[in-house]
Parts: sequence; structure tokens; C-alpha cells
Amino acid sequence: MCNKTFHRKVEPYYYDAIKNLKGGISMKVAIIQMGVDFDKQKNLEKMKSFVHGAKASGADLAVLPEMFNCPYSNDYFADYAEEAGGESYTAISQAAQENEIYVVGGSIPERDGSDVYNTSFAFDRKGVEIARHRKVHLFDIDVAGGQRFFESETFKAGDNITVFDTEFGKMGLVICFDIRFPEICRLTALAGANVLFAPGAFNMTTGPMHWEILFRLRAVDNQLFTVGASPARDEAGVYVSYANSIAVDPWGKILYRAGAHECMEIVEFDLDEVQKVRAQIPLLSAMRDDVYTIKKR
Amino acid sequence: MCNKTFHRKVEPYYYDAIKNLKGGISMKVAIIQMGVDFDKQKNLEKMKSFVHGAKASGADLAVLPEMFNCPYSNDYFADYAEEAGGESYTAISQAAQENEIYVVGGSIPERDGSDVYNTSFAFDRKGVEIARHRKVHLFDIDVAGGQRFFESETFKAGDNITVFDTEFGKMGLVICFDIRFPEICRLTALAGANVLFAPGAFNMTTGPMHWEILFRLRAVDNQLFTVGASPARDEAGVYVSYANSIAVDPWGKILYRAGAHECMEIVEFDLDEVQKVRAQIPLLSAMRDDVYTIKKR
Repeated sequence: MCNKTFHRKVEPYYYDAIKNLKGGISMKVAIIQMGVDFDKQKNLEKMKSFVHGAKASGADLAVLPEMFNCPYSNDYFADYAEEAGGESYTAISQAAQENEIYVVGGSIPERDGSDVYNTSFAFDRKGVEIARHRKVHLFDIDVAGGQRFFESETFKAGDNITVFDTEFGKMGLVICFDIRFPEICRLTALAGANVLFAPGAFNMTTGPMHWEILFRLRAVDNQLFTVGASPARDEAGVYVSYANSIAVDPWGKILYRAGAHECMEIVEFDLDEVQKVRAQIPLLSAMRDDVYTIKKR
Repeated sequence: MCNKTFHRKVEPYYYDAIKNLKGGISMKVAIIQMGVDFDKQKNLEKMKSFVHGAKASGADLAVLPEMFNCPYSNDYFADYAEEAGGESYTAISQAAQENEIYVVGGSIPERDGSDVYNTSFAFDRKGVEIARHRKVHLFDIDVAGGQRFFESETFKAGDNITVFDTEFGKMGLVICFDIRFPEICRLTALAGANVLFAPGAFNMTTGPMHWEILFRLRAVDNQLFTVGASPARDEAGVYVSYANSIAVDPWGKILYRAGAHECMEIVEFDLDEVQKVRAQIPLLSAMRDDVYTIKKR
């Protein structure tokens, strides 16, 4: 584990006028880009170590990568799957409780009866589950000359828009491929999210093309912060993650972008930016509800 | 008018495999970034000259900028407004007919009774009107230290999703601020558009921040071509247009991006790319209609 963690004070930018506006609600987010091993125990131990480090660096919330406890492959998801309340779930909850910080638990394969989901559990500072997002859009692609992957061969899809409350306001949660769909991101914003967390593992085909722009424009469209947390890249792994964990502000400015290697970064969000941006370029209030409708069924 | 027009054969990119796929339906689009004068007659004459040049360069379709016949200011819109069938409308129609090419007529202030709209009229190769898009989302912003503009002080808003048929397939049409709203772009794509035209005039505040990323991600999300046609920049004008007219392919790749000055570029679209991209990363078919709905009222 790389110990190069430091605080990065994120300042509004673009305009001096905006720079001079003082923010009030600040949240420190630890973005954990950890490498994933075949050994689930090692993954859980590493997770605990990172969350402890996040707390030591002053983080209020730590976010883990998609499938941080399991190799990203249809060959492993079912074997590694656990029910809610199982070993991995409990380990994340305990890490949150012991360090008294929020943990957005990346995702793990979750077994529910005969079904397996790609699920992100989030826990509060007491280790209590406060959100459970089952990936809504399963990753099925077949790029000519590039990546082929059909997540739907193993997983069942979820069907919820997920937000949870914190003392910093509401937070939204989607997983990876979900972020390609403007509808789920918009509905999460309309449900009150100030930050959209998306643990994700884009690959070396789709990552260079679309990872950054997706996190930037979802932030611009919905005028909120976006955070992507990826597994570190393992060139020899069963699935080569693009990595490049990212944080973007409500103007679309990249606040942090990781490289390929395992690391953790603390990024500070001035959450007042959300309302400031929405006041200056009113997008959510300018939606034409009389012309079109978008809603959760 | 700058005569530096040339053909640019747009090739698929990113992967050699994609490069080797041969396309079938090719459309040449002339993107006209013209400077706008206070003299409406001069604007119409220049428009005619550009459309003639577009034809001479082999274009199938020419797209004009937002408010190409009128200074972009609430002080002028009402004075310059004409009813459908008026002088500017007729001039665009005639330019289309005389040159036997499609013309997406940027936009002009349109009077309808006591109302004024920001309207884009499109004409076929015979000069027959085939689309009329009245800007749905009016541009009302007040950026601290940046741009303040309230289009709603003059204009009434339209309420349609606009597509039109050509021998190249369906084309979609929105205007400027409309492109900030994923819903109208999605609904235009779902209505069958292979290309989304957006005459627009972003300014020196919002342009550098968001112009490019909006055209790129609307293309990526909806897997279609996007085209933005802007007025050329006039630093001494009543409104300083960002210019930077742009064309983007369904992968999100920028095919063409203008600078600040008046010019025209012919960009060739391989429309088969639309179906190829949609087959490889199926997004429209992966939308979760059982979880959320998005529809025209």
C-alpha cells in the first residue's frame, strides 16, 4: 500500500469572482484505488488498512473500488458471492465503525437466494448500513477488436435509484456501467444527491475513450460532484482495469485523477459549490417538465 | 468569406479493427461559421454565398449558426423577427433549392402573433420546409463574475422534439442551450436521429468550460454524430460568441473543431458508424425502461 496520502484543498476555479466566494460545508473523501488479489482475505485486510489510513488522513468518507474483494470475471463472481451480513459486508461495516467514517463499500458480489448481484453497500460512522445499490445496468459489450464482456451471464440487475443521508447532505450511489446512462444519474441528482459516487472498473478499451468524459459531464449536467473509484491496474490480471480513479467538481473540473497504480488520495469537496453553480446556471430548475418527463417507475 | 473549404474524409479510429470496417452511407456536411453583421441584408447575402460554396465543395447538407441574421441580443431579437415565410425564411429556402442541398437554417427570431421564438427552419433539396425547431430551453444564466443573459426576457419557448427525414436517415435538431439537457437529446435520439444538429452561440464564459464536452458526451451517450454551428467571434460585438463550431462522431471523437474566425468546413460522416457503435456497446437497448421512464409529454 502506498502511503502517499495528502490533503488537497479543492478550490473553486475558472473565475476570480467564484474563487472569492467562501464555502461552508467541507467534506474530505478518501478515494481508494486498491489492487485486487485472488485471495479474498488479503483483499479484506488491505481494505481495512486503507480505511484506517483514510481516517488517519482526516477523511470523512472512504470509497472503495468496484469488486474490491473479488477478481473481475464471470469465472469468480458466484464463488466469491456472499449474502448481506456476510464476511466482506461485516468487514466493511467494522472498518467504518472502528474508524468512525462513512464507507462506500465499492462493490462485492452479493448472493440473494439463487441470484447474484453486483452490490455496493454503504455504512455510516457507526457501521450501520445506510445504502445498498445493486448495479442497475449490467455491463454487456462486444467491441470489435476490443473488449468482450457479458456481466449478465452471472448477475441479476438491481432496480433502485440510491441516495443516502449524511451530515454533509445527500449522497448518490451508482456502479460503473450505470454512469453511462444519463437517466439514472439525473434521477439520483433529482433525489437530492450532492455527490455521485460510482465505484467502477472500466477497461483498457472503454476507459481511455469514455471514463473521464462521463464523470465530467455527469457532473456538469447535474451540477454535483462525481467520484469514480477503480481497482488498480494489473496488466497480468484476469481483467485489466483502466484505474484512473477520479473526482470532478460541479463545473466539470477534474479535482483529482489517479494513475494506474494502487494509491489513496484525500480530496476535499466544498459542498456549497453545488448550490452556487445551480444558482448561476440553473439547469435542474430549467428542465421542461411540461415537454418531457423523466421519472422512476 | 474564407474559401478554405476542403473535404475531410472522416475515418473511424481508436481500433484498427474498426478502421477496417467499410462504411456505406456517407453524408457531407458543410459547417458554416459565419460572422453576423447588424445589417440583415448582408447576413442573408453572406448566407447565400456560403451555401453556394458548400454545394461547390460537394456538401449534401449545410448548417448555419444560431441567430445568423441578427445580432445576439435582447435589444434586437424583436426588431429582426419575421414570420415563417418571411424574408430570411425565403432566402434560406431559395438557397437550398438553387443549390439542391439540405439547409439547416441555424436560427432566426421568428414572430408568431405577439410571440417571438428562437427558431431553426430546415429545408430539403427542393427548398421545402422539413423541420421547424423552436428552442425549448431558453438561455437564462447569471454566472458570478461572468456572463449574464436572460433570453426569456424576449423569447417564448418551444415544446417539440424535432427530427426530419433525409435519404441519409433521420436527423435531429435542437438549439444551443437545449444541448445542456440530456433529456431532449435522448428523446431526439430515440426518435431516430443519426445526427444531432445544434446551431449554438455559447459565450466566452460557458464556451471554454462546456461547449466541447457537451457535444462529445451527447454523441457518446446517444451514439450518434453531433454538430454545433456557431457565429464567428466578434470581440467588439454585442455578444462575443465562443465560435469553435464542432463535429463529433458516435465514439465521442472530435472530427472537426473551428477556431474563432469565419470559415466553412466540409466534414464527411460515415453514417454506418451509428449502427456499428450501437452494436458494440449497446446503450439505447440497455436502457432500463422497467426502472425509469423518459418520454415526450
